[in-house]
Amino acid sequence: MAYTAKTRLFIEDSLPGSGLIDLDKGQTHYLANVMRVTEGTRINLFNGRDGEWQCLVTHASRKSVSLLVEEKVRDQKTEPDVWLVFAPIKKARIDFMAQKATELGASKLIPLLTARTNTDRVKVDRLALNAIEAAEQCERLNVPEVTEPIKFKTLMEEWPSERRIMFCDEMRNAESAIHALPKGSPPPPWAIFIGPEGGFDDRERETLAAQEGCVSVSLGPRILRADTAAMAALSLWQATLGDW
Amino acid sequence: MAYTAKTRLFIEDSLPGSGLIDLDKGQTHYLANVMRVTEGTRINLFNGRDGEWQCLVTHASRKSVSLLVEEKVRDQKTEPDVWLVFAPIKKARIDFMAQKATELGASKLIPLLTARTNTDRVKVDRLALNAIEAAEQCERLNVPEVTEPIKFKTLMEEWPSERRIMFCDEMRNAESAIHALPKGSPPPPWAIFIGPEGGFDDRERETLAAQEGCVSVSLGPRILRADTAAMAALSLWQATLGDW
Repeated sequence: MAYTAKTRLFIEDSLPGSGLIDLDKGQTHYLANVMRVTEGTRINLFNGRDGEWQCLVTHASRKSVSLLVEEKVRDQKTEPDVWLVFAPIKKARIDFMAQKATELGASKLIPLLTARTNTDRVKVDRLALNAIEAAEQCERLNVPEVTEPIKFKTLMEEWPSERRIMFCDEMRNAESAIHALPKGSPPPPWAIFIGPEGGFDDRERETLAAQEGCVSVSLGPRILRADTAAMAALSLWQATLGDW
Repeated sequence: MAYTAKTRLFIEDSLPGSGLIDLDKGQTHYLANVMRVTEGTRINLFNGRDGEWQCLVTHASRKSVSLLVEEKVRDQKTEPDVWLVFAPIKKARIDFMAQKATELGASKLIPLLTARTNTDRVKVDRLALNAIEAAEQCERLNVPEVTEPIKFKTLMEEWPSERRIMFCDEMRNAESAIHALPKGSPPPPWAIFIGPEGGFDDRERETLAAQEGCVSVSLGPRILRADTAAMAALSLWQATLGDW
């Protein structure tokens, strides 16, 4: 699909009226040594709060890059509120899942420790970097939060009652997502649940099904890997309830 | 999502009444050295024509594996007829796209050489192996054909008039897929077109839009990478017109 020509960078700093911004080490390396920006180059910055701002590179060396915040080019908009709650998977695939989920508009990524989760060591920092890079490339104006891994039981005990659940049911006796997902806008907050290889166990399935506002959906007759299921579910949610 | 416990293997041979089957080198290596099957193990074979058959390993060594075809466990079913026509992308991502497109039920994978395609060397054999492995894991009863790369102009000149086109339009002035895709079953054959980074050029866009039965669909306000767009489009097609 089409790419934006302009380099976009996510920063924590506030943007309006902030004048000169000195970038941190990692961003300096990226701009100076990877993107090879020079004085006079213009790039865009966003921080998830103040929209997107055009900035002028006023100084660029291998050691430091300074930017002058010039003008707002896009207003901040609210992204759909849909969490992706997923059982962690192996390295390459989980990085990939973080990138794709960001492109597909997930608002929060929550690694879930289930009875059948076969890995509980999750590099949250690395997932967050994957999400930032994807957000910079896909023209999002914010970056999904990546939380620490949480036990299924703990998450469900403190589950916010107003947040509905799209339960991707690998038992496949459920309805097609497009028919099962209730229409009507604005949609309430949602969360998509993706199980581990082997699926949620019976107790977890019962807990999910018993949640008020939980909708079981089928992702078809073929068995999807967890990362494929996450992308399919996010796509269907966006097309049905989100901003597609 | 849930995985099948049983090892599944795709072979070219005919299955009904074929008695003993000696596997080729690659499959022997996979079963004997990777899966460590031994005499007496049962695995399933499928060939895309005869359904899925339970087989008994009658001999297993590092050099050769023989199987006795016992009984059919699943009838062959017709998969949805949806081609994925995509501009080739870089190595890791194109392997991944072949795997995911297979899981998501694409019936044929066609690498498309467009004006802005930045790679024209496509390892078709490797893509086919990725498709086979994914089909074995996702319980498909067939494997999507992977064709040689074809020039946009050539493909459109010989385009089968009855096959409709889902054109994923990165200009994003199109309708949401769920509303744009015509309902009604059984669906005619379809093809999903995914452009290169930078998108189709104006002439290609006009050619596609001018095709009878071409539907332009939007995949939302965020810019999707080609592989993400392919998976999103296949998911929406399956949920709207396919077997989900």
